[in-house]
Amino acid sequence: MTPPHPEAGARADVDAPAGGAVRPGARFTFLGPEGTFTEAALRQIPGVAESEVTASVSVISALAAVRSGAADYAMVPIENSVEGGVSATVDDVASGDDLQILAEVLVPISFVLVGRQGVRLEDVRRVTTHTHAWAQVRGWADAQLPQAEFTPAPSTAAGARLLLPQTTDDGPAIPAFDAAVCAPLVAEQTGLPVLAERIEDTAGAVTRFVLVGRPGPLPAPTGTDKTTLTVPLPNDHPGALLEILEQFSTRGINLSRIESRPTGTGLGQYFFSLDLEGHLAEERVQAALAALHRIFPGVRFLGSYPRAVEREVQVPGHMSDEAYRRGREWVRGLLRR
Amino acid sequence: MTPPHPEAGARADVDAPAGGAVRPGARFTFLGPEGTFTEAALRQIPGVAESEVTASVSVISALAAVRSGAADYAMVPIENSVEGGVSATVDDVASGDDLQILAEVLVPISFVLVGRQGVRLEDVRRVTTHTHAWAQVRGWADAQLPQAEFTPAPSTAAGARLLLPQTTDDGPAIPAFDAAVCAPLVAEQTGLPVLAERIEDTAGAVTRFVLVGRPGPLPAPTGTDKTTLTVPLPNDHPGALLEILEQFSTRGINLSRIESRPTGTGLGQYFFSLDLEGHLAEERVQAALAALHRIFPGVRFLGSYPRAVEREVQVPGHMSDEAYRRGREWVRGLLRR
Amino acid sequence: MTPPHPEAGARADVDAPAGGAVRPGARFTFLGPEGTFTEAALRQIPGVAESEVTASVSVISALAAVRSGAADYAMVPIENSVEGGVSATVDDVASGDDLQILAEVLVPISFVLVGRQGVRLEDVRRVTTHTHAWAQVRGWADAQLPQAEFTPAPSTAAGARLLLPQTTDDGPAIPAFDAAVCAPLVAEQTGLPVLAERIEDTAGAVTRFVLVGRPGPLPAPTGTDKTTLTVPLPNDHPGALLEILEQFSTRGINLSRIESRPTGTGLGQYFFSLDLEGHLAEERVQAALAALHRIFPGVRFLGSYPRAVEREVQVPGHMSDEAYRRGREWVRGLLRR
Amino acid sequence: MTPPHPEAGARADVDAPAGGAVRPGARFTFLGPEGTFTEAALRQIPGVAESEVTASVSVISALAAVRSGAADYAMVPIENSVEGGVSATVDDVASGDDLQILAEVLVPISFVLVGRQGVRLEDVRRVTTHTHAWAQVRGWADAQLPQAEFTPAPSTAAGARLLLPQTTDDGPAIPAFDAAVCAPLVAEQTGLPVLAERIEDTAGAVTRFVLVGRPGPLPAPTGTDKTTLTVPLPNDHPGALLEILEQFSTRGINLSRIESRPTGTGLGQYFFSLDLEGHLAEERVQAALAALHRIFPGVRFLGSYPRAVEREVQVPGHMSDEAYRRGREWVRGLLRR
Repeated sequence: MTPPHPEAGARADVDAPAGGAVRPGARFTFLGPEGTFTEAALRQIPGVAESEVTASVSVISALAAVRSGAADYAMVPIENSVEGGVSATVDDVASGDDLQILAEVLVPISFVLVGRQGVRLEDVRRVTTHTHAWAQVRGWADAQLPQAEFTPAPSTAAGARLLLPQTTDDGPAIPAFDAAVCAPLVAEQTGLPVLAERIEDTAGAVTRFVLVGRPGPLPAPTGTDKTTLTVPLPNDHPGALLEILEQFSTRGINLSRIESRPTGTGLGQYFFSLDLEGHLAEERVQAALAALHRIFPGVRFLGSYPRAVEREVQVPGHMSDEAYRRGREWVRGLLRR
Repeated sequence: MTPPHPEAGARADVDAPAGGAVRPGARFTFLGPEGTFTEAALRQIPGVAESEVTASVSVISALAAVRSGAADYAMVPIENSVEGGVSATVDDVASGDDLQILAEVLVPISFVLVGRQGVRLEDVRRVTTHTHAWAQVRGWADAQLPQAEFTPAPSTAAGARLLLPQTTDDGPAIPAFDAAVCAPLVAEQTGLPVLAERIEDTAGAVTRFVLVGRPGPLPAPTGTDKTTLTVPLPNDHPGALLEILEQFSTRGINLSRIESRPTGTGLGQYFFSLDLEGHLAEERVQAALAALHRIFPGVRFLGSYPRAVEREVQVPGHMSDEAYRRGREWVRGLLRR
Repeated sequence: MTPPHPEAGARADVDAPAGGAVRPGARFTFLGPEGTFTEAALRQIPGVAESEVTASVSVISALAAVRSGAADYAMVPIENSVEGGVSATVDDVASGDDLQILAEVLVPISFVLVGRQGVRLEDVRRVTTHTHAWAQVRGWADAQLPQAEFTPAPSTAAGARLLLPQTTDDGPAIPAFDAAVCAPLVAEQTGLPVLAERIEDTAGAVTRFVLVGRPGPLPAPTGTDKTTLTVPLPNDHPGALLEILEQFSTRGINLSRIESRPTGTGLGQYFFSLDLEGHLAEERVQAALAALHRIFPGVRFLGSYPRAVEREVQVPGHMSDEAYRRGREWVRGLLRR
Repeated sequence: MTPPHPEAGARADVDAPAGGAVRPGARFTFLGPEGTFTEAALRQIPGVAESEVTASVSVISALAAVRSGAADYAMVPIENSVEGGVSATVDDVASGDDLQILAEVLVPISFVLVGRQGVRLEDVRRVTTHTHAWAQVRGWADAQLPQAEFTPAPSTAAGARLLLPQTTDDGPAIPAFDAAVCAPLVAEQTGLPVLAERIEDTAGAVTRFVLVGRPGPLPAPTGTDKTTLTVPLPNDHPGALLEILEQFSTRGINLSRIESRPTGTGLGQYFFSLDLEGHLAEERVQAALAALHRIFPGVRFLGSYPRAVEREVQVPGHMSDEAYRRGREWVRGLLRR
């Protein structure tokens, strides 16, 4: 099994005494099917093992389940997922009913080759997996399985399940494939023999996932937090991005992610999705958000939550809450004299 | 059949007398399988009908084919694709051997429901398609096919092909599904009967694709061009994005797309992928690129090419080539006196 | 006499029902001697005619009189004065005890040539005045008084007084000069005959003066106000000016004057003196000042007061007090949920 | 005599082998009268002792002498002068025929009290000097000469000369004053006894002067240079200053002085006068000037010259001439492929 990635999973204590804790008895869903990296991310959340968990067929349906109340929380990919869904997440949380991100989770992207019962690595001829996964092990496969023929599967987990013993009306049948590329979790869940591990061509890749719920109290600030926003642009106005960024830079706020995305309602209509380093409980973040709201009233707040990888946010002295308080007091003094 | 989207396909004349014309006898590939929207995009390129065309199993393998010379051009999604691959395109062109974008193509995202021979809409019970496509017709399906059960397929085209008459050793077999959701092109290619068209829940969605080749002469400027760049950030330095944007804004250059993307070589390592409005033949674009290269020597130029939807780029008078020439002449005069 | 300049003196109602009204029975001083343009500026203030008025020998002593309580208000030049003192004003209000600007006044700069009793223009041979004044009528003098010889005087008023009938121990003496260049006010005060008027080489010049008092309530906002600040730079840090300006530009605040000035306490030590368009009663001005105070805690507020020339300040919709209130309410709502 | 200020006069080698050397046999003028700090500045220029030197009555006439060819060079104050003239210099070089600054010179501002022959400090009752000078020794005078009465003089030098032995038609006359405040140079020139020295209330003050000639070759770059510009604003457009500053900041250029000045041609018409750290021979300075010229075609170049106080200009690596060359080469390579 892949040992935990040194930087992965460092932070997922959403049931900590924070204001935004996961509710006991909560129901979870995730971008399925079973065995995906998304499920691996969800398993990092404390308390999930004892909770009701269902797989969703898409990011959109996972988030719809949370909005409708069919689930309380959904785990979905937000960056760099090998299984897709990233754009769907970014786009879907930007419209419809408000949602809130409660935690982010990192999962190392590592693949294993599982085989059907009795097959040895040197005997593998027919391999299946999702095309994205195949693309990421292509170098290894060319070197180690030059003779193998590839057939795409709907997902890595579905491909692996095709290796399990089949029974037809005519009795047991031999699986159509010898091996499948999948996440370590799938090997664990199916019990299929692992023929090779860590077969990914690029080592160290990590995918980010977020746990999404309905709007509610925020997780308490930890000093190493993120805040996610979407900012729809009223029209394709040239300086908009710069105007947005200046609201952050003039308040000493760093951005860790930014994407322009088409809104889907027409060509040339865009919104920005971004993560900033800081928590809404901080004055400088409040000031930046209030300023954004003045300029772009459609700005959407998607939550403040702890970073998966702790990295203390460096707040310049003149941007501290204390500095904000003093600046305000000074102005009030001028108005009172 | 879906009539052409009013904004789609407006520009794909890469074989125009421009410097960057598609070579006669060129070999093309695309993100397969057959019948995807990506293939529909490729078909908009003049001369493709008479050329050798192959499907690739992934964006990565399509681009690898171009790099290795196995193909001359690859059509891949760059924004908002219903079939995935967008992040793969953005990431893959940012590293490895240099590639060059020669054209962009828009395809309206519209779905049809095809049925197996003899099935009527009201009889449909078992539907298959890619999960992304299913998510986009969910509203229509809930209303029109409340009784139908959904099974995921590896792609929309593969799902549709499952409806074709099957032959087993025991003679003809009834397909396992009654209907499939797919692109109009698949219906055309398979001849399967169309039970319903324009069934997508959001009308007017359009996906952008790009035609990618090896580096070479640029398509001639048209006055309505785009330039694509990637800018790797040496380290996670806070003001980098602002510094990048200022290089454009101080030269009156508008950005039409920007994304921060993890590099895959380690957490916290990012690069920016962006489209600017203008052509490298313009002085202001040259000045901005030279400036970016000073600050971020790893900047990568991915091509200047005509916009799919013509929209003349408004260049402020003081940013015209003439203004650049005059400013330079003035400084030279000072140095000569 | 020079008719009032069309743009001059439009606003000086410091005794309006505003909070910052000139106190009844107040004592005034100005940059003397009598007859300067500064005195002309002071006379525009309502109520001055009935008040105690003294001339000061320098800007520094005028402001020292206000600080010590020897006077309540001082009129001093702030921009473009023909009689000097501008730098002294800008520098002096930037240090020492706090002062407050209550009004600005414009005076058209126009000169007359006064002669001693009985002299005709064509007989003028010996002229005196302050060198600054002489520089501004030089073109006229070269054309009209080619034969005249110039001798500098300590001020325009002092020069004119040398033309008055003198008495020595030996009886009446003939003045040493035939004519003097001075402000129209001096001609009025001395009764000396005016030989020529509007003799300045550049027509339409105007000088700005400010009425300075001790800190107290601000004049009420009029919709066409200015606010004056000084911002000492802690050290010669390169981006400081840009940082200051961004605090204004991100809040839609325009600057109408800016100067960098050496502090006098050492080479390379600078402060900025600036006027912004707006009143401290406005939220956007308060926000900008609070932000400046965070970054440069030595910032000094020198008053909000009506512009001499009314020009309504255009506040972008998203910078209005209402927009500020709404932005703040939105953030509070997020924190409360 | 006042020993040289530690930071003063460090740099005035305009006759160095630089391109902008003072011509042999050149004629000089300065803001007079004799004995001013401006003359002290001029004396720092090598070769002046052997040259023809005349005093001008004003900054305007000094610069007019250079423009007309009556003089080759003029020394005038540019910052913080005790004798005025700063605004006149800044304004005058901004219009009319082009002029060029060839050197800057610093002079420590220190005052002495000179007396008429035979007077002791304790006997001084009647003092004269320029009002600006009086303001700067007021503290000392209040403490040391409480009994003295002050009368303004047209200049410090003129005041001091009133102490020299007078002869009237009736024979020798006693001077009207006992003492005068003036620059050390005046004491030296007149031979008047010095009753007290370093009597200025603020120690360490320094004034900057510039040597101005007609346009010609630039002094060679020294690595510690300044460049002076004026930028007229076509109309009172709000973002102009920010736009100007961005042209410098995006090229890593620091400003050491900036002033907004009314143009004199109408209210609300302004220009900026500024000094930047660097020499026109540097690519980054050339790029910034060319950019300014595009946006504000009226920009005026007033010279690149060595700083009086050497302070090496720190050029960030990515702003070096080498980086400029590489950036340009990269773009050219793209256009050539």
